[in-house]
Amino acid sequence: MIYFDNSATTKPYKEVVDEVMDCLTNYFGNPSSAHRLGIEAEKKLSSARERVARIINAGPNEIFFTSGGTEANNTVIKGLLKKGDHVITTKIEHKSVIQAVKQLEEDGIEATYLSVDKDGIINLDELKNSIKDNTRLVTIMYVNNEIGSIQPVEDIIKIVREKSKKAKIHFDAVQALGKIKIDVKKLDADFLSLSAHKIHGPKGVGALYVKKDLKLKSLLTGGGQEKDLRSGTENVPGISGFGVACDFAYNNIEKNIEKVKEIKMHFIKRLSEIDDCIVNSPFDDKHINNVLSVSFLGVRGEVLLHGLEDYKIYVSTGSACSAKKAGHKNYVLPEIGLNEDAIEGTIRFSFSHMNEIQEVDKTIDALKNLLKFLRRFKR
Amino acid sequence: MIYFDNSATTKPYKEVVDEVMDCLTNYFGNPSSAHRLGIEAEKKLSSARERVARIINAGPNEIFFTSGGTEANNTVIKGLLKKGDHVITTKIEHKSVIQAVKQLEEDGIEATYLSVDKDGIINLDELKNSIKDNTRLVTIMYVNNEIGSIQPVEDIIKIVREKSKKAKIHFDAVQALGKIKIDVKKLDADFLSLSAHKIHGPKGVGALYVKKDLKLKSLLTGGGQEKDLRSGTENVPGISGFGVACDFAYNNIEKNIEKVKEIKMHFIKRLSEIDDCIVNSPFDDKHINNVLSVSFLGVRGEVLLHGLEDYKIYVSTGSACSAKKAGHKNYVLPEIGLNEDAIEGTIRFSFSHMNEIQEVDKTIDALKNLLKFLRRFKR
Repeated sequence: MIYFDNSATTKPYKEVVDEVMDCLTNYFGNPSSAHRLGIEAEKKLSSARERVARIINAGPNEIFFTSGGTEANNTVIKGLLKKGDHVITTKIEHKSVIQAVKQLEEDGIEATYLSVDKDGIINLDELKNSIKDNTRLVTIMYVNNEIGSIQPVEDIIKIVREKSKKAKIHFDAVQALGKIKIDVKKLDADFLSLSAHKIHGPKGVGALYVKKDLKLKSLLTGGGQEKDLRSGTENVPGISGFGVACDFAYNNIEKNIEKVKEIKMHFIKRLSEIDDCIVNSPFDDKHINNVLSVSFLGVRGEVLLHGLEDYKIYVSTGSACSAKKAGHKNYVLPEIGLNEDAIEGTIRFSFSHMNEIQEVDKTIDALKNLLKFLRRFKR
Repeated sequence: MIYFDNSATTKPYKEVVDEVMDCLTNYFGNPSSAHRLGIEAEKKLSSARERVARIINAGPNEIFFTSGGTEANNTVIKGLLKKGDHVITTKIEHKSVIQAVKQLEEDGIEATYLSVDKDGIINLDELKNSIKDNTRLVTIMYVNNEIGSIQPVEDIIKIVREKSKKAKIHFDAVQALGKIKIDVKKLDADFLSLSAHKIHGPKGVGALYVKKDLKLKSLLTGGGQEKDLRSGTENVPGISGFGVACDFAYNNIEKNIEKVKEIKMHFIKRLSEIDDCIVNSPFDDKHINNVLSVSFLGVRGEVLLHGLEDYKIYVSTGSACSAKKAGHKNYVLPEIGLNEDAIEGTIRFSFSHMNEIQEVDKTIDALKNLLKFLRRFKR
C-alpha cells in the first residue's frame, strides 16, 4: 500500500495506539472525579497538555483540548464574534472556517474573504485595506490543505497589529503542525487550531491555543472542563494519544521535514516525464512539501484516483471533507487561476515522513500506465 | 478495587478496547475519502450507527455522532432556540443543559426551570402550566445523574403534544441508556442525547437522536459530515467502540438490570445497620437502580470519599463534573429538600453490572469502620 493522502488523515503511530489502549484499560477514571482514578486520569491530561504546548512553544495553560480542528475553528469564530463585528478570512480556508463564517453572516456579522494569487497566497495590501474599525477577527489558515500554500503569518500579524487594537488573529494551523516550526510566543498569535489525526495521532482530538488572558464564549457549555471554555468529560485516551504524537513530531521535526522534502523533490522531478501536467504546488518557500497538487490535463481526477487505487496507491482529488459530496465543486483551485479542465484533472498527493522515495517511483509508473489508457479514453 | 462511580464514567469492555485498537491500526482512513480506505472507515461508521440506533429503536439515519453527551445537549439547545423562544427545563438537569440554557438567556431566550419533589420528579401540572405560545423546547433529563430519579417521560410527551404544536421535546438520556429500555418510536421524542463512556464505551463519543425530518442549526460547522449537522472528521475508533458497547448493552439489558437491582437492594438492606443515614434514591420505580445516593449525617462526604479510597473503594459526592471545583455548591440535593448537614454528608454510589454483591458487603464494612472514627472526629 502506498498512502499519499496524509493531508486527509494519517496512520497513528504504534506508540499512539498503545497509549490510547493503556488509557482505555488502566486510566479509565473521569478526570473530574476527586478520587485516585480521577487524579490519575487528570495527570494524563496534564502531561498531554505540556506535550502539545511544547510543540508550539505555548504555556500548558494556553492549550484547550477539543474534539478536533473543526471544533477549534468553530470555537474561536463563534466564541469571539458578536453581531456588528467584522471578520476577515480568505477564499481558500478549510470549510470549518468558511462555513462557520457564512453561518454567522446570517446573524449579522460582516465578513471579508481575501483572494489569493496563483500560489495561493493572500495579498498583504488587500488585507491591510480590509481592516476596519469593527474588525474583531482575522482568521487565516497557516497552510492550505489542498495546494499547501504557506501564508506569510509574520507579515499578517504585523499588519493587523499596526492597524487595529481590537482585531484578534487566529491561524488554522492544522496542516502546519509538525511540518513547520511554530512558535506562538515569537509569532504573537492570539488563537491557533490544531488537530491530532493529521500528525499520526488519533481522530476525534484537537486543541485550541488561546493566548493567556484572552477569553472566548464557550461553544460546548456545561460542567466547566477546560477552564470553562470546553465542557464535556475529557477524551483522556485520545488526548493522551495526541500528546504522544506531538512528542514524535517535536523530536523529529527536522528529520521529517528533510525526508518529505526529498519525496516532493523527487516526485516533481519525475513528473517531468509525464506530458500535460501542471504542478499547482511547486517546490519553493511558498508551499509546504507535504502537499503536491498536480493537474493532469485530459483526464478526470476521480477516474485517475480510482485507477491508482487498483495499484493500491491512495490519493485524493482535493479536500477529503467534500470528496464524496454529490455536486461538490472545488472552491480552492479556481482561486489560484486553474481552468475547468485543469481542476477536473487535479490530484492531491500528500506526504508524510512515513512515505518512502521508492513509493514515488511506483506511483510515477502507475500514473504513466493509467494516463496512457485514460487520456485515450477521454479524448 | 471496588468501583462504585459508574455514573461518572465506566471501564470500557475489553471488546471495546480491541475495536478501538483495530480501527486505529487497520481502519485509519478518513471516512470522507473516496478511496478504499475511506470506504472501509465509512463502513465502520455505518455499522456503529445501526448498533446505536437499534438500542433506542431509531432509524440509523436518525443518529448523529457527537463528541459526547455535552455536545449532544448543546447541539439541541443552541441549534433549535432563537431569540424570543421559550425553553422549559428543570432545576436538576446536568450542567450541560442548565449552563447552555443560562448562556442563551443572555441572548434573549426565555427559560423556565421546573422544580422537583422529594423524589426528584417534576410536577406535571407545573410543566403543563409552563407551556406558552413561544415555547420551542422542553428539555428534561430522562434519569438524573445524582439521585437517579426517573422522569415520567411518557406523560411529559403527552402533555407537551397536547398543549403545543411548536414545542419540541428533548431528553438527556445519558444516564438512562443501557439501564432502561428506550424506544424513541413508541415514546415519540424529538431529540435524545446519548454518551458512550457511561455504558462501558470510550470517552469522547456520544450521539444525538434527531427524529426524521427535524432540522437543527449546526454547532460544529464545516465539511458537512453527519449530514451537515456535525462537521469534523469522524472519530472512527471511538464511534466504532461506541457501537460495540451498544451491542453489549442491548444484548444484556435484562440481565444487567437484574444484577444491578440485586446490588442496590442488598446495599439498602445492609445500610440499615448504619445509624443516621438517609437514602435519597430509594429502591422504587421512581429511581434507577444504578444510583444510590446516601446522606451520612455528621460527616463530610468528601472526607468519607477519601476514607473509602484507602479501602480502594471509589465513589463520588455528586456529579463528577463539579467535584473538584473550588466553592462548588451542589444544586440538585437542595431541590429534593435536603438540609445543609445532609447535603454535606452525601455520597453517590453508582453501580454497573460489572459490580458484585460481595463488593457491597466490603463497602458496608468499610463505611462502618470509617464512620465510627469520622463521626467522633466531627462531633
